[in-house]
Amino acid sequence: MGEAIEFLRARKMLVCSGRAHPVLAEEVAYQLGIELLPIKVYDFANGEIYLRFLDSVRGSDVFVIQPHVNPINKSIMENLIMLDALKRASTKSITAVVPHFGYARQDKKHNSREPITARLMVDLLAAAGATRMVTVDLHSDQIQGFFNGPVDHLEAGPLLYKWVRRNVKDLTKVTVVSPDAGRTKASEKFATRIRGAKVAFIHKMRDVNQPNKTVSDVVVGDVRGRVCIVNDDLIDTGGTILSAINLLVEAGAKEIYVTATHGIFSKNAADKLEKSAAKAIVVTNTVPIPKRQQFKKLEILSIAPLIASAIDGIFHEEPLGALFQAS
Amino acid sequence: MGEAIEFLRARKMLVCSGRAHPVLAEEVAYQLGIELLPIKVYDFANGEIYLRFLDSVRGSDVFVIQPHVNPINKSIMENLIMLDALKRASTKSITAVVPHFGYARQDKKHNSREPITARLMVDLLAAAGATRMVTVDLHSDQIQGFFNGPVDHLEAGPLLYKWVRRNVKDLTKVTVVSPDAGRTKASEKFATRIRGAKVAFIHKMRDVNQPNKTVSDVVVGDVRGRVCIVNDDLIDTGGTILSAINLLVEAGAKEIYVTATHGIFSKNAADKLEKSAAKAIVVTNTVPIPKRQQFKKLEILSIAPLIASAIDGIFHEEPLGALFQAS
Amino acid sequence: MGEAIEFLRARKMLVCSGRAHPVLAEEVAYQLGIELLPIKVYDFANGEIYLRFLDSVRGSDVFVIQPHVNPINKSIMENLIMLDALKRASTKSITAVVPHFGYARQDKKHNSREPITARLMVDLLAAAGATRMVTVDLHSDQIQGFFNGPVDHLEAGPLLYKWVRRNVKDLTKVTVVSPDAGRTKASEKFATRIRGAKVAFIHKMRDVNQPNKTVSDVVVGDVRGRVCIVNDDLIDTGGTILSAINLLVEAGAKEIYVTATHGIFSKNAADKLEKSAAKAIVVTNTVPIPKRQQFKKLEILSIAPLIASAIDGIFHEEPLGALFQAS
Amino acid sequence: MGEAIEFLRARKMLVCSGRAHPVLAEEVAYQLGIELLPIKVYDFANGEIYLRFLDSVRGSDVFVIQPHVNPINKSIMENLIMLDALKRASTKSITAVVPHFGYARQDKKHNSREPITARLMVDLLAAAGATRMVTVDLHSDQIQGFFNGPVDHLEAGPLLYKWVRRNVKDLTKVTVVSPDAGRTKASEKFATRIRGAKVAFIHKMRDVNQPNKTVSDVVVGDVRGRVCIVNDDLIDTGGTILSAINLLVEAGAKEIYVTATHGIFSKNAADKLEKSAAKAIVVTNTVPIPKRQQFKKLEILSIAPLIASAIDGIFHEEPLGALFQAS
Amino acid sequence: MGEAIEFLRARKMLVCSGRAHPVLAEEVAYQLGIELLPIKVYDFANGEIYLRFLDSVRGSDVFVIQPHVNPINKSIMENLIMLDALKRASTKSITAVVPHFGYARQDKKHNSREPITARLMVDLLAAAGATRMVTVDLHSDQIQGFFNGPVDHLEAGPLLYKWVRRNVKDLTKVTVVSPDAGRTKASEKFATRIRGAKVAFIHKMRDVNQPNKTVSDVVVGDVRGRVCIVNDDLIDTGGTILSAINLLVEAGAKEIYVTATHGIFSKNAADKLEKSAAKAIVVTNTVPIPKRQQFKKLEILSIAPLIASAIDGIFHEEPLGALFQAS
Amino acid sequence: MGEAIEFLRARKMLVCSGRAHPVLAEEVAYQLGIELLPIKVYDFANGEIYLRFLDSVRGSDVFVIQPHVNPINKSIMENLIMLDALKRASTKSITAVVPHFGYARQDKKHNSREPITARLMVDLLAAAGATRMVTVDLHSDQIQGFFNGPVDHLEAGPLLYKWVRRNVKDLTKVTVVSPDAGRTKASEKFATRIRGAKVAFIHKMRDVNQPNKTVSDVVVGDVRGRVCIVNDDLIDTGGTILSAINLLVEAGAKEIYVTATHGIFSKNAADKLEKSAAKAIVVTNTVPIPKRQQFKKLEILSIAPLIASAIDGIFHEEPLGALFQAS
Repeated sequence: MGEAIEFLRARKMLVCSGRAHPVLAEEVAYQLGIELLPIKVYDFANGEIYLRFLDSVRGSDVFVIQPHVNPINKSIMENLIMLDALKRASTKSITAVVPHFGYARQDKKHNSREPITARLMVDLLAAAGATRMVTVDLHSDQIQGFFNGPVDHLEAGPLLYKWVRRNVKDLTKVTVVSPDAGRTKASEKFATRIRGAKVAFIHKMRDVNQPNKTVSDVVVGDVRGRVCIVNDDLIDTGGTILSAINLLVEAGAKEIYVTATHGIFSKNAADKLEKSAAKAIVVTNTVPIPKRQQFKKLEILSIAPLIASAIDGIFHEEPLGALFQAS
Repeated sequence: MGEAIEFLRARKMLVCSGRAHPVLAEEVAYQLGIELLPIKVYDFANGEIYLRFLDSVRGSDVFVIQPHVNPINKSIMENLIMLDALKRASTKSITAVVPHFGYARQDKKHNSREPITARLMVDLLAAAGATRMVTVDLHSDQIQGFFNGPVDHLEAGPLLYKWVRRNVKDLTKVTVVSPDAGRTKASEKFATRIRGAKVAFIHKMRDVNQPNKTVSDVVVGDVRGRVCIVNDDLIDTGGTILSAINLLVEAGAKEIYVTATHGIFSKNAADKLEKSAAKAIVVTNTVPIPKRQQFKKLEILSIAPLIASAIDGIFHEEPLGALFQAS
Repeated sequence: MGEAIEFLRARKMLVCSGRAHPVLAEEVAYQLGIELLPIKVYDFANGEIYLRFLDSVRGSDVFVIQPHVNPINKSIMENLIMLDALKRASTKSITAVVPHFGYARQDKKHNSREPITARLMVDLLAAAGATRMVTVDLHSDQIQGFFNGPVDHLEAGPLLYKWVRRNVKDLTKVTVVSPDAGRTKASEKFATRIRGAKVAFIHKMRDVNQPNKTVSDVVVGDVRGRVCIVNDDLIDTGGTILSAINLLVEAGAKEIYVTATHGIFSKNAADKLEKSAAKAIVVTNTVPIPKRQQFKKLEILSIAPLIASAIDGIFHEEPLGALFQAS
Repeated sequence: MGEAIEFLRARKMLVCSGRAHPVLAEEVAYQLGIELLPIKVYDFANGEIYLRFLDSVRGSDVFVIQPHVNPINKSIMENLIMLDALKRASTKSITAVVPHFGYARQDKKHNSREPITARLMVDLLAAAGATRMVTVDLHSDQIQGFFNGPVDHLEAGPLLYKWVRRNVKDLTKVTVVSPDAGRTKASEKFATRIRGAKVAFIHKMRDVNQPNKTVSDVVVGDVRGRVCIVNDDLIDTGGTILSAINLLVEAGAKEIYVTATHGIFSKNAADKLEKSAAKAIVVTNTVPIPKRQQFKKLEILSIAPLIASAIDGIFHEEPLGALFQAS
Repeated sequence: MGEAIEFLRARKMLVCSGRAHPVLAEEVAYQLGIELLPIKVYDFANGEIYLRFLDSVRGSDVFVIQPHVNPINKSIMENLIMLDALKRASTKSITAVVPHFGYARQDKKHNSREPITARLMVDLLAAAGATRMVTVDLHSDQIQGFFNGPVDHLEAGPLLYKWVRRNVKDLTKVTVVSPDAGRTKASEKFATRIRGAKVAFIHKMRDVNQPNKTVSDVVVGDVRGRVCIVNDDLIDTGGTILSAINLLVEAGAKEIYVTATHGIFSKNAADKLEKSAAKAIVVTNTVPIPKRQQFKKLEILSIAPLIASAIDGIFHEEPLGALFQAS
Repeated sequence: MGEAIEFLRARKMLVCSGRAHPVLAEEVAYQLGIELLPIKVYDFANGEIYLRFLDSVRGSDVFVIQPHVNPINKSIMENLIMLDALKRASTKSITAVVPHFGYARQDKKHNSREPITARLMVDLLAAAGATRMVTVDLHSDQIQGFFNGPVDHLEAGPLLYKWVRRNVKDLTKVTVVSPDAGRTKASEKFATRIRGAKVAFIHKMRDVNQPNKTVSDVVVGDVRGRVCIVNDDLIDTGGTILSAINLLVEAGAKEIYVTATHGIFSKNAADKLEKSAAKAIVVTNTVPIPKRQQFKKLEILSIAPLIASAIDGIFHEEPLGALFQAS
């Protein structure tokens, strides 16, 4: 007879981080009441990354926290290498937790012979070993469908709604403004969270004979004398946002706030926004915002509790619905 | 010495069709100057489909034309079975030409434990043997990224623009209206084709305490006294469109036209639209519109020349860019 | 140090059903002492299926009960969509329980350019997310090999043997008759369960110059004065069975019974069989048999206990051998 | 501008062989008017196979002829290694031509915890690089469905029918006998090729209380005074065939012939058959039959022309239907 | 509400063996305190392997112990068939434990149109169902990277170091000699385990005009008057080793020992080595060494405790680092 | 009847380049007599790469030339994005030409929980769309086996041998020195190209109690009064090479040359080598060597003709053997 050894096996959760945003990872680990899995990671002289996990990971459910931040290609590659190391190290499952997902804006082809880099990113994560993904406010919801497995798509919306409700005085006159026609649906969703809020969007008019040139931008919707919340998924160079702010001022907006999930603040975005007519710029810390990019009007809300709750729910196999419930 | 036989081999193009829309397929074949590959296809008593291709397909580049139409699950399954038969029959390549792509609206999760059926459809087509896809006006562009290979995504826009420019008298007062906030970007694109056109959209207001109920719909944007083009990707039951028409009438629109790529016309859509205030409903024939669903105000433009050009370009390996160029 | 959270995790079993055969699914659930996972499922106006599971499925072993029944392509597609939803919802495993497997008779090519649709079905189930299959009496055993994973192939044989032994009076004169040469092996197997039973089959003679026409059918084997059990895997239109019954009558059979696992009863099969010379038609409820298709001579045996035992054994990781053991 | 070099490229056909049956491969090559691709192949001292192709194969359509013969595991492994070498050597396509397919009888599970080795073989050929398969008379047709691509399944039937029609004198009294209930369908097919032929089969009776023991074998069908053609897919140890011959003699058969596609002749099969009551044993050369296994009553028909025609048709992309057409 | 059954499930470990090296497997099982899973395995007359596991394996973590030994292709195929049977039998995980990995020396292409058979082996194991691998001293470490999953690569080094330290008297004068330039790195590693040990290698000089002929072999490094440890991964025909021994004698070596992980001893290797100037030949039992191949100077160290520890660690999800730690 | 359109299709070759080494790509294109495929490529403000090919690529065989150079993660990601764009653009084949393959030195695990990044790179290239690879002097030959398809592995050896034979005066006294025990085999190969050349290597001695510290390096082999060619695959920081040079000087070498395929020259490698005792440092241009890193003793040989010949041979399906033939 073939005898079997039997024993009850406990599940083990491990959380680790590359060099993209260790502060966030540590905040998440703290919320979970654990410490980060120790890792040794450095660059060789030629730029190649070396890394190794320093504690056993056998049979563990490992969560790899790495937003894709500048230098973005390096943080993505580091993410992939961490996954490969874990795949070869007998882990039970590997969840890529990517608070800010790189190349998410390249989610479709505008022209022939363009890549769909957002899909490529998903394929690379899968090829490297990710068996599940957690992310926050993808540029489009369809990106979830790029992955052939479970994705927990968290939303920073509730954090931002709450901020607005606590900090904007005249809540009866809110108009949520989409800085781009493509975000109108998202603004409509935002607006449902504030009783009586209207919506508007910035319409980029183009000349039919010069299709790639914007002739002029106009505000479509009611903004005069209203409290405008310009809402976007991310702020990069701040150009689109700033142009929206200026248009709204011209159109007679009473007060302007800007909310976004990801605060990239490339180039002189910080400076431009500080000097703008907006009263506050509210983002979360899905990407690190170094001191030099911070400015007075900037409010940074922590996404860590949300991510920690998601990890906890996934590990304990509890529904995450409550996390998505606005309040 | 191992001798090799050498000869120059010609490429062969074949076009075939299931039972979903043979009229369109024949029109495409006629445009290409060929006849459809003969097929034997029928249902067994228990509803299972039997099919077989009656001419050799070895080494051919085969184009399978099958829009997904009601009974939609059957036309999808028939599509998959055709692909399987071709995969096992030594074809060189198999292109799924799906003028109307089923389940395209289910391209993301709105709630936990929902499927992403549009991605599933792509996976099924790939599992069955499709190596390339051609389709028309997907509900969202990101669906292209669901496929791990080349997709030629055709646009009916130019057909519709041309119709508008030829048939609408007062082109100086056009407003392109999106019946849903999520289509605003598409309307903006439409508007660039008509000099001076404005854009607007229908905003569905919801009560914060009853998130799933629409309290009221309002038009955002300038429509009073203007020629309104309500533009959508498809018309199904016509409910959204009709509601938009009525709102526009109330808001003082001067004239209303409806354009859409796919004319499904479920339930009594035909009847409702005929009786509406719209002057004309313009669609293409990506899906068959049986006589009983046709009505006076309906204009059907043929998509066959566009599909034929795409097939021709693919087969002859010529760039398709010109097809996408608006005129 | 990277601390891990550890805990013992219980396994959770969930059973769900689409709209193909909820009565069977509920009977299985009842046998297991649980309730079905609540599901919301309906058709859109254009025929597309919408569905969503209403309770958490995270980390569960989910069993999806869906035989493929008329409208067969719809019930298959519904099956696939359920699997996709579960795949994206963090289940631990997904078992497709398909009591009647659609397209199983199309398990090989009879002619060039035919599909092998049974293999396609297996590929589609796998592509949609099934990691294991449970099914009953496939048309051929080889279909198990179409799946690249574990298949539990249940047999209704013991149910049918028992019925025969309890209800047929003269068990010493039984001949098991295969209605088709291809089922002779199965009849031989059946015959081993009844001491002294003989076997026979219906031979379809064809003219060498008209290969697709049957010239005449003859019974090969000893049936005169004997109790004949005509045994098949399924009864569809009943044509083959009826022809066998008539031949047996002509050949002097004393009594005739018909047994089959799957009772499809397409067209007027019910009527024809009721009027036939057979004393009883015995099937199981792998597919739903609506009241209008039921008839006096029909005996329906429940397959639910067998399926429930299989699910229970799989979930508790116990050998299923006993289920297959005839008695 | 990116300039492209263009030229018309000829297709090249190459045929190669391992050590399983070089005589057959050479006969096929001769029929095709070419020589075999030179190969260097030998065993290392520890039994590992070394091989290398000695002429360029770049861009060629390569056909690898290797039946699976004793030592069967070695000839399979050699087959796989040839495929791997070709996959890494920039061939255009690789067709595994396997005249006798190893492990084909293990095409389903009879008991729990058995493999489905025939499916495994298909998976191994695919993993090693085969993109298409050609084979002759698989043990069951469903094995075609194990492969996820085109299979050309040749039939030796016409060769055998012709031999019978030319060599059996009294063609009006033929009964085609299946030595096993599972082959009855095949015998029925054989019988349609001879006007007026009847069919019969050997029924293995078992005791219900001793399911694995055959109590006695009986002939079911009309064989007395008739010319019996015992037909099987292969002859291995000859036990089943011999037992059938003896039963037929007892049952009064007038003359007995044996036909089979694959003549394995393991153990003392040759000796037993030579001494049997059969007048002739007719097989093809899908496997090599060494001199010492040949005997007077043995007739070996060459399968090479059929295989050569198939390869020729595949390479020139012509339909193979004519090859399957009986005459 | 969908109720779930919940229970705590124990993990079950099973160890099984084919016919390649049952003695080693039993020794491993004994170390683990269990018995081998019973298996029925035999060859059919035509050489095909039949096998079946005789106890339930559902939900178990199964470890399949099978080194690849002569007849090597058969032991590999048996390995693959065992994996397929387990894959279809609802196991939780399948670890291929391959103490001696077949074809490992064919890990790269030396010439065009050669296979990379070591990679092929890994692909075959994966295709057949292995989800993890354990092996000992692969010919090159890179072979680990051929597998797309976890590999535990055990080293026999510590066993061999210990033997040397216990049995070689004059440890102050050791030179570790690589019999081939390609093993120099491995010898350097060996040398670090013995304080003050030097390294040397045998340099095969070739004539530039006759690149495939060795003109002469020379020792590079200091061996005169020293205790030489000739170290290799395996001893096959013993030719390379014997040539090294003779060169070392000529070069004035004082004493010579040979160590290797795998003792294949093809042809007359045993005889040649017994008669050589070496004082002892030390190997492990990764492959069975039948009595007739054993000789006086041969020392066989058991690898079973190492393999048992690895299996135990994998099953209990404990780090295996300690196993690799030299002492 | 289903008519087919037939025509003879010419093959088109296209060569393109990212921003890693356009000078090399242009030299290759020039050798091939064509121009590079025009590409638009730039970085967004947040570091994400945008790219698009500006000419049609339909049906073409595209060769993507991109060595992996500093910033190495960016040049890898750019490589992957180019592949994705081509995969979606209906190319016939995509060959990744990677003259210097990033992360090649991370081709095995030295410790638990390390990645095998070289394998990961191959997986990423395959996931992104590469169907074939061309590369030069991989760190280990086994990396070829990481790819599941054809790899043309070019060797810079002949270029370097020729340089040595033309520029080193006293060719009768050459010793090829491996700077590391692991390169001894490669040095042996180099030595066969120079009549009478000896080999040597640098042995890193370690203390048994401090395994990670090198106690001292010693030269093993005959170098006194000889012309030493230190040969490595790449020069990164130059540390290993410099240490070898110094040891050789101490050991009495007469003259020292350094040859390597890839000249990375990280940090102050250029400066160190210029000041060293070596007479010349000879590398190829697989990676760009900017002016500031060039120095007097540096000789750069162009690899472009070799790569051009390989591309030409692949496109015209001619054997590449001649390219590998040393002269």
